Amino acid sequence: MRAGVGALFVDPDMAAIWSGKALVANMLAFEAALARAEGRAGVIPPTAAEAIGDTCRVEDFDAPAIFREASVAGVPAIPLVRLLTEKVAEEGRGYVHWGATSQDAVDTALVLQMRAGIELLLRRLYSIGEVCAEVADQHRLTPMAGRTLLQQATPIPFGLKAARWLALITRQMRRLSEIQARSLVVQLGGAAGTLAALGDAGPRVVELLAEELGLSAPDLPWHAERDRIAEVAGALGIVGGAMSKIAQDLVLLAQTEVGEVTEAAGPSKGVSSTMPQKRNPVDATLARSSARLALGIVPVLLATMEQEHERAAGAWQTEWEALPRLFGYVSGAVTHVHGALTSLEVDRARVRANLDLTRGAVMAEALSMALARQLGRQEAHAIVRELVERATREDTSLEQSAANDERVRAVVNPEELAQIFTAERYFGSADLFIDRALAGFRTSSSVGATHDDIR
Amino acid sequence: MRAGVGALFVDPDMAAIWSGKALVANMLAFEAALARAEGRAGVIPPTAAEAIGDTCRVEDFDAPAIFREASVAGVPAIPLVRLLTEKVAEEGRGYVHWGATSQDAVDTALVLQMRAGIELLLRRLYSIGEVCAEVADQHRLTPMAGRTLLQQATPIPFGLKAARWLALITRQMRRLSEIQARSLVVQLGGAAGTLAALGDAGPRVVELLAEELGLSAPDLPWHAERDRIAEVAGALGIVGGAMSKIAQDLVLLAQTEVGEVTEAAGPSKGVSSTMPQKRNPVDATLARSSARLALGIVPVLLATMEQEHERAAGAWQTEWEALPRLFGYVSGAVTHVHGALTSLEVDRARVRANLDLTRGAVMAEALSMALARQLGRQEAHAIVRELVERATREDTSLEQSAANDERVRAVVNPEELAQIFTAERYFGSADLFIDRALAGFRTSSSVGATHDDIR
Amino acid sequence: MRAGVGALFVDPDMAAIWSGKALVANMLAFEAALARAEGRAGVIPPTAAEAIGDTCRVEDFDAPAIFREASVAGVPAIPLVRLLTEKVAEEGRGYVHWGATSQDAVDTALVLQMRAGIELLLRRLYSIGEVCAEVADQHRLTPMAGRTLLQQATPIPFGLKAARWLALITRQMRRLSEIQARSLVVQLGGAAGTLAALGDAGPRVVELLAEELGLSAPDLPWHAERDRIAEVAGALGIVGGAMSKIAQDLVLLAQTEVGEVTEAAGPSKGVSSTMPQKRNPVDATLARSSARLALGIVPVLLATMEQEHERAAGAWQTEWEALPRLFGYVSGAVTHVHGALTSLEVDRARVRANLDLTRGAVMAEALSMALARQLGRQEAHAIVRELVERATREDTSLEQSAANDERVRAVVNPEELAQIFTAERYFGSADLFIDRALAGFRTSSSVGATHDDIR
Amino acid sequence: MRAGVGALFVDPDMAAIWSGKALVANMLAFEAALARAEGRAGVIPPTAAEAIGDTCRVEDFDAPAIFREASVAGVPAIPLVRLLTEKVAEEGRGYVHWGATSQDAVDTALVLQMRAGIELLLRRLYSIGEVCAEVADQHRLTPMAGRTLLQQATPIPFGLKAARWLALITRQMRRLSEIQARSLVVQLGGAAGTLAALGDAGPRVVELLAEELGLSAPDLPWHAERDRIAEVAGALGIVGGAMSKIAQDLVLLAQTEVGEVTEAAGPSKGVSSTMPQKRNPVDATLARSSARLALGIVPVLLATMEQEHERAAGAWQTEWEALPRLFGYVSGAVTHVHGALTSLEVDRARVRANLDLTRGAVMAEALSMALARQLGRQEAHAIVRELVERATREDTSLEQSAANDERVRAVVNPEELAQIFTAERYFGSADLFIDRALAGFRTSSSVGATHDDIR
Repeated sequence: MRAGVGALFVDPDMAAIWSGKALVANMLAFEAALARAEGRAGVIPPTAAEAIGDTCRVEDFDAPAIFREASVAGVPAIPLVRLLTEKVAEEGRGYVHWGATSQDAVDTALVLQMRAGIELLLRRLYSIGEVCAEVADQHRLTPMAGRTLLQQATPIPFGLKAARWLALITRQMRRLSEIQARSLVVQLGGAAGTLAALGDAGPRVVELLAEELGLSAPDLPWHAERDRIAEVAGALGIVGGAMSKIAQDLVLLAQTEVGEVTEAAGPSKGVSSTMPQKRNPVDATLARSSARLALGIVPVLLATMEQEHERAAGAWQTEWEALPRLFGYVSGAVTHVHGALTSLEVDRARVRANLDLTRGAVMAEALSMALARQLGRQEAHAIVRELVERATREDTSLEQSAANDERVRAVVNPEELAQIFTAERYFGSADLFIDRALAGFRTSSSVGATHDDIR
Repeated sequence: MRAGVGALFVDPDMAAIWSGKALVANMLAFEAALARAEGRAGVIPPTAAEAIGDTCRVEDFDAPAIFREASVAGVPAIPLVRLLTEKVAEEGRGYVHWGATSQDAVDTALVLQMRAGIELLLRRLYSIGEVCAEVADQHRLTPMAGRTLLQQATPIPFGLKAARWLALITRQMRRLSEIQARSLVVQLGGAAGTLAALGDAGPRVVELLAEELGLSAPDLPWHAERDRIAEVAGALGIVGGAMSKIAQDLVLLAQTEVGEVTEAAGPSKGVSSTMPQKRNPVDATLARSSARLALGIVPVLLATMEQEHERAAGAWQTEWEALPRLFGYVSGAVTHVHGALTSLEVDRARVRANLDLTRGAVMAEALSMALARQLGRQEAHAIVRELVERATREDTSLEQSAANDERVRAVVNPEELAQIFTAERYFGSADLFIDRALAGFRTSSSVGATHDDIR
Repeated sequence: MRAGVGALFVDPDMAAIWSGKALVANMLAFEAALARAEGRAGVIPPTAAEAIGDTCRVEDFDAPAIFREASVAGVPAIPLVRLLTEKVAEEGRGYVHWGATSQDAVDTALVLQMRAGIELLLRRLYSIGEVCAEVADQHRLTPMAGRTLLQQATPIPFGLKAARWLALITRQMRRLSEIQARSLVVQLGGAAGTLAALGDAGPRVVELLAEELGLSAPDLPWHAERDRIAEVAGALGIVGGAMSKIAQDLVLLAQTEVGEVTEAAGPSKGVSSTMPQKRNPVDATLARSSARLALGIVPVLLATMEQEHERAAGAWQTEWEALPRLFGYVSGAVTHVHGALTSLEVDRARVRANLDLTRGAVMAEALSMALARQLGRQEAHAIVRELVERATREDTSLEQSAANDERVRAVVNPEELAQIFTAERYFGSADLFIDRALAGFRTSSSVGATHDDIR
Repeated sequence: MRAGVGALFVDPDMAAIWSGKALVANMLAFEAALARAEGRAGVIPPTAAEAIGDTCRVEDFDAPAIFREASVAGVPAIPLVRLLTEKVAEEGRGYVHWGATSQDAVDTALVLQMRAGIELLLRRLYSIGEVCAEVADQHRLTPMAGRTLLQQATPIPFGLKAARWLALITRQMRRLSEIQARSLVVQLGGAAGTLAALGDAGPRVVELLAEELGLSAPDLPWHAERDRIAEVAGALGIVGGAMSKIAQDLVLLAQTEVGEVTEAAGPSKGVSSTMPQKRNPVDATLARSSARLALGIVPVLLATMEQEHERAAGAWQTEWEALPRLFGYVSGAVTHVHGALTSLEVDRARVRANLDLTRGAVMAEALSMALARQLGRQEAHAIVRELVERATREDTSLEQSAANDERVRAVVNPEELAQIFTAERYFGSADLFIDRALAGFRTSSSVGATHDDIR
């Protein structure tokens, strides 16, 4: 459907949810539901409601023509309502769009699209969580260099890194679920938000409309108060940011000089047009791009909260394009992270070799803490720093350098020293943290556990 | 304290919460609480804990010197821990910062500042809510032109506009309270997030630390997973956007040609250096500026979610400056909106006069709906449009033009016509909406109801 | 071509320039020009160059398939080069893409698209300039309220407002022309930017390639130094901002309570689905939306300057989608501003009536300056402020109030007073400023003066 | 002066340029220059001009009090003009701020600060350029792995990387110089931009004012057309982006697993509070943070182009805070990059060792191109990919693997093969590119060559 470069940054399922045709379909869903609600509330004749409902079939509408006309009319609901009215049978024709305003149709349609979009993201995130959970569990005991400011710090199990990705994803799933429950409400306010055209029946129609569409009903119309939209935007931006974090970790781990992970190559995946040896982390790379594109939209949707009076001249209309882009790019980020993780190959030998690269200096904190129990933190720290420098100078390991030092020998015996330099013994509470991350994901998994059809 | 132009965009109380001195105080609060927690957990001697706690007095530390050193060391916790260790009595000296890493101190301090900042915002928002509630209630029956795309649409009671501002504010209060409960958690992970330096005692120390500080304990350390920070940023951005919406409405209502509201002038408020007649909406203007500045920070804090491995080289450090700015500017927006609303003067005569400006055309929808019940929506719409044009052409009112039209007379009698053109009778469900907004605010008001000391 | 809501925010001509097919065509243009350049430089056989050039016909390539494959390969140049090689006749097949890297093809293609995009913008801006120039000239003597902080300040000729729009547009045309000359350079660096695969011939091939494509040659390859792209982005953002300024002025002037301009309604332009009397400023509204969308992309393209080493993993790829969006949305803003201005109807009576709204207070500065020549600025200012207040209190005009004041009478005689209150006599240097704006535009007009086909 | 965490992200010299006191000083400079210009033009008495000029001494004004009052008055020029008028001797008092409006004073002051800020940046960038030039020249022959998508690609001389940083910096210096010449113009338009209060003398006063301040005079006042400000913002954002690029390269090269460069440690630079072995790239890290903060401001200043009518209510005021922040953070980025580069230690052995890490695979393109001359590009590429895989499988070098292959032996002899695998022989045009970068910098160096006092 998308013939261009956008295909690299947007999941096709998400593109379908936000297509022009889908917007038309959702506006029609609004008009049909409104008619039914008004029929049930006795505002319009039941036969009219039925006639309108019968006509709201997207196949009968020319979406591109609607958007061309919309660029003159200023809002897609206007040509849509005109066309719908023409098509509706005699008994319903006078009751189309009864008491509603264009914004009611467009906003509710957007809410329906947001609902579908969030559901898709939840399923995709769940799939990523599953992979992370597996990696976390499998690599509980794989010692890897923990890195701060991209410097080796102390060892961690690789499983903990995956567990933290998992906890991050779990929190996003929870946040999206909450927003879905709270922020996805119908819009029905009429011309200036009073529902005056519906007389006393307004609030009842709003309730029935919400019921028809399976959405919540808001306390008040919200034509120009867009905090709910902004909240969705913020949450999606955070999902994008989360994907960036994971994707960047993968790109860094895949560096030639680190080499701890690789995205499995397919027949044409990640190769270079000119360098025969290369294997590029394509999915992680495109995930980062998609996330950057997504993040660019969030401030647009925050700034559009500044909407004039009862309906904005510019800020509101911006959402029509910004929301599809935002959902699209976030879906691209999520899908590419999924692609990267599912094709991930871990090179345990390189993981281990990197940990040994500093000849024991990565265990400096372990040694320092062992000494600190008797010498105090600062003095222990000073001694170990001295030993690190000496080891470098004398081209030996930190363990050897420590073994030669009297101050060290006075505090730890050779066996203890050997244990201090065993990375697997310096994992602290990592195992518990991994368990917690797994448990948290399992608890939240109902959220996205529906069968997902990710390619 | 702030000698510069920043004073126009930041509430001084918020500036105090985020001052350099306050950051030092909060890092000291972390170190003291950590020592007490470790004392209680039996990780360090109780006397050491006490000695450390006794020394954590911000008055004894030279904050500017700490930040100067931090610009070389790379993180303010390093000089702070060094100075603290020097000052602590013999029995505690060896146990300062035990098992923690710099990021633990800085992050927890930031969380404490965010807590104080959110509390301040909640109080300020509550104060704004009170004013909006009063306006909403007072102006339930003041007919005002509802405006869409800055064109007069249909009448609304001015109270409804205020009620929608109020509902917007109430939702922000709720959102901030939720975030406070969910996202403000301590940080304690040690060098690379395993708490290895604390042996088995890590999770217990985390719990006690949280208890000491009155914060929640997270499942896992979160050194490089910053979604909670991003969520706070997003929520504050939404508060900023909400302030923009209200402030822009006020600026638009205060236009010379609209003239429905004015910010009451003080002796030197809102005057011009060159035009003696001017009365500028100063608070609303500065609120908009502050909100713009705030919104600029949100994408920075979303982008910083891309943090490398176990601690970032750049993205994390960015938060130290971005968070104070964000809280500062949002506070400025909130305080200026409060200033604008509390000094608001409403010119009822102008409100009424504006509504009459179109000679009844603002009631076109009311007429159209009255006709539609018999003629159908589209035909009624077409007739009324014709009448509007005729009224303009013949320089008469829409009511007169309608009264002269046979198709209208066939459907509505003169009495009905007079009622159709009575704005107050076309308020629909506005009264109910106002009630709901008031009730929603009252329900949520516990949140911010503490006495506020806003100037 | 764009079936969705994007049609409201993107000029179709610009969409065509940035379509997927156009990108393929431009990559083919690069490959053909490279072959010709290498043929001329003696790097590959002339027959090979010819064979390659003959095959670079976009009609023979399946663009959507290329982008689908690109989402796995990571870059569109890889499938393109593969397909091209397959199609090229025997004698050229071994020489396709000789010595180049994927990024060379993609970047040069983007530069070609940017060139076409900027040319289109220049033509559109020129068209806007022509309208502004006409308005500026026509309304040299139409007194309008100058407004600061949306309060009436002092009179200006409406022509001056248009002249300032014009000067703004003229500066954008100049800026874009400069960038076109300076920043649009070919990319050819080979795998890591050394052109090693071309031996000594590299720099010569770069020159010939540039010549073939009518672009400039850069000093050095720029695979990971993207300031030129960022400069284009910044300049387009400024164009977007300029469109916002004009569009917002129009929206404000079109308010029901101001009513000084209207966008001429077409049969379905700017009407409401529910309010028969409305005439919405559709083009100005959509211009503002398009500009907001455009501005959201600029920070994305600034942030992507952080590119790793010799080619980035994420930041570079982001440009492929961000640039088409940016050019697209800016084109939408420009086209809608053009639509708004060409259909503009000015209501001279309302312009005049608004100026009279304050009963002379808009002339307060004029009076103040007249007094100041004898009384000093501060005293004059104080007197006039007093007179403004008195006029309001006594429900009279400022002129009358001044005429009654002895201090005024002591300084100005009745004739002078009448002149002071004649708006047209208080235009200062406006006429000169209008002349300058017109002259500046005429001087720069060569830039965009080619026949434009805007609808 | 800045006691807080901002000290990590802002150069103190830049902070001084943008302090509140400096703004007051520059507004006074405007008022003095205006008086002199008006004296010279015969608009006010020469004695008045002199009296005003004599009083414009910043030491006599209480800057914090001015900003406190400004937060009520809405603009700092109002309290300033009031205080100045009080202080000026009798003969000048009536002529202070004659014919000007507040925005004239504030805008011109901001322009003066921008000029000083750009000059400082130019000097700092020149200093960075000098270091880059030295590295480029020194490391012309140091083979380093060129890296694309963080994968080793082909060798480059380290000098080329530095040369590309240098070319990037040179372009920034040129861009800033151009902007300085073009965009830094005085503001003088009076109340609504007509200079009406100056009668016919307006344009002459503008010229003289510009002359007095050493700035250019604009064609028209630009109170609400802010493209020049936006252009400065864009250019500074690009400088920030350029710093990010360099800083990120340094952070990546400093990774434990890469280890090619280190920021020289000072006594307390880059150490860890808990890990004795660490040496963090502090300056590069803080440069990245500063750049991120800077980039956050650019979209704020683009969005503020949407200014209402003749003076904006919110957008304009935003600039007062945004510009100081932007200049501040960019200066921080520049200063920290300078700090990182001047303290850079290059580990030639690690650079070499990394290049050997792939056992010759980094020379795959070289081999491929050597074969391609006879076999064609695609076939050569396929053979070499096969050889790379075989070498991995057989745990040997690519050179050995190639030597064993008949197809290779048929095309290249052993000597040629050895040369193919000599990285230094595959530098292509790198040397020329380095020369060009050096020459470009030298040519532009006049721009920033003034003695700089960077710490």
